[in-house]
Amino acid sequence: MDNKDNKYDVVIIGGGPAGLTAGIYTSRDRLSSLLIERGLPGGNMNYAESIDNYPGFPQGVGGAELAGLMQKQAEKYGLVVIPADVSFIETEDKQKIIKTSSGDFSAKALIIAGGSDRVKLGAPGEKEFTGKGVSYCATCDGPFFTGKIAAVIGGGNTAIYEALHLARFASKVYVIHRRDNLRATAVVQEKAFAESKIEFVLDSVVKAIEGDNVVRKVKIQNVKSGDFSALDVSGVFISVGLKPNTSYLQNILELDKQGHIITNGQMETQAAGVFAAGDIRSGSIRQVVSAAGDGAVAAVSAKNFIDG
Amino acid sequence: MDNKDNKYDVVIIGGGPAGLTAGIYTSRDRLSSLLIERGLPGGNMNYAESIDNYPGFPQGVGGAELAGLMQKQAEKYGLVVIPADVSFIETEDKQKIIKTSSGDFSAKALIIAGGSDRVKLGAPGEKEFTGKGVSYCATCDGPFFTGKIAAVIGGGNTAIYEALHLARFASKVYVIHRRDNLRATAVVQEKAFAESKIEFVLDSVVKAIEGDNVVRKVKIQNVKSGDFSALDVSGVFISVGLKPNTSYLQNILELDKQGHIITNGQMETQAAGVFAAGDIRSGSIRQVVSAAGDGAVAAVSAKNFIDG
Repeated sequence: MDNKDNKYDVVIIGGGPAGLTAGIYTSRDRLSSLLIERGLPGGNMNYAESIDNYPGFPQGVGGAELAGLMQKQAEKYGLVVIPADVSFIETEDKQKIIKTSSGDFSAKALIIAGGSDRVKLGAPGEKEFTGKGVSYCATCDGPFFTGKIAAVIGGGNTAIYEALHLARFASKVYVIHRRDNLRATAVVQEKAFAESKIEFVLDSVVKAIEGDNVVRKVKIQNVKSGDFSALDVSGVFISVGLKPNTSYLQNILELDKQGHIITNGQMETQAAGVFAAGDIRSGSIRQVVSAAGDGAVAAVSAKNFIDG
Repeated sequence: MDNKDNKYDVVIIGGGPAGLTAGIYTSRDRLSSLLIERGLPGGNMNYAESIDNYPGFPQGVGGAELAGLMQKQAEKYGLVVIPADVSFIETEDKQKIIKTSSGDFSAKALIIAGGSDRVKLGAPGEKEFTGKGVSYCATCDGPFFTGKIAAVIGGGNTAIYEALHLARFASKVYVIHRRDNLRATAVVQEKAFAESKIEFVLDSVVKAIEGDNVVRKVKIQNVKSGDFSALDVSGVFISVGLKPNTSYLQNILELDKQGHIITNGQMETQAAGVFAAGDIRSGSIRQVVSAAGDGAVAAVSAKNFIDG
């Protein structure tokens, strides 16, 4: 353990399920391990009110609760978790250098598990009304819309879960999706179809979000008819995807066209001693259990790399 | 759901963490899903008294308990689990045929998650004394050796966990390993070093297991000195690895030289609509969480295959 000089055996960037699982594994292997997370450990799990498909929890488990359990488990074995923003990495030497808002760190092996951020819609009014009716997290902001009308933009699992959550509070929830069918899993769709407060507005894109000091309406266009219309809403929840946190890795690691890190099945990137795991990885299915599995694989690969 | 004709959307072979997780995912996707398991669902998890590195259980979780939780979760969403032995599969047609001891089944997609069996040592006396002192599962048979002397053969995590478990019952536990250092994770090794009942016999191979109506001694040879010796023991627990359950897949799927199924990162085999997940897969790190992750990926791939 030589972490008094900011030197570790393994540095892990990102504290979602991939990073925390990597930390459980490297710490149990008695590798001195630092996890750097710019926000709350747990990553996008923190936005999930209930995770029903993480194996071992038949009644579902709160996302923040599962994150806390994973963090506790990793810290029990010695993982150090610090809040910081990573700005740059140097991968060419034997010691990898990680530059952060809390100083520089070095490691024999680096595991990048920085996940993905919410994609912005890019509609007029989105930025202006963020925090004034525009939100990216129904679990966080749902109660503010009690008895009001809200809209969710998107058609994937996350969007539908957001709509179901909002239906507990709002008097009505529109789900606005640009296609004529949802991407969400059948069982999730069925839940939404069974919820009388939810109304689907398909084949439609958001053209603008309007209001005064708060959101008042969302203007939409039907992509088939070309017709414009407006819905009176107090909240607009945007759930149109995730963007990998790899802007600082351009020209350092091989990325796919969306910016995900390319790895092989052992989670190796093309830089020796640098591994990637979870949603940040090209080809990830973006599930908690697969991210956790990736983290374990990356940790075993990191151990093997350090052991030579 | 057309399972009255033994037809399913997805058939899953094997009920370990990979198969059960695949079942959670395909069932939640409202694909009619059958899981075929020849033994107890849970696979090799059933041999683990406590699993400490499955994320979400900071205090550890019993292997059989975790298996039960996963099975309950999958069955909640409609997974059908039956006991049967698979003898053959036909992969060439659009409908895959699975021939079993309980009849034939067909599926649009097949996920093979049959795991691995314990490897036999191949020493004289091993077969003769199986059940009479020779065992492959300390969790199952440990209490029979209360106050007696036992030996564990092997140096990996499983072997050391077996030794630690036996130390609860036995008066002394030898760990006999052919190399001069253990393969087990550092934290696991440390636990064993701290247990005064455990004595390591390194650089040594088992030449014979001897006794009368039960095991009385194990004959060993030091691989460096060539010297022979014997240890008085009542139990011999063999933990020298796992062998993938793929004998019925020879000439049907591409296997590596140990017999593991070769897949890509999406868990696709070279047969369209046939996927593999977990310990049976080439390159698996043989951990519960990575097997579960594989199962989720295979399920998503199977869904995509069925959806065309």
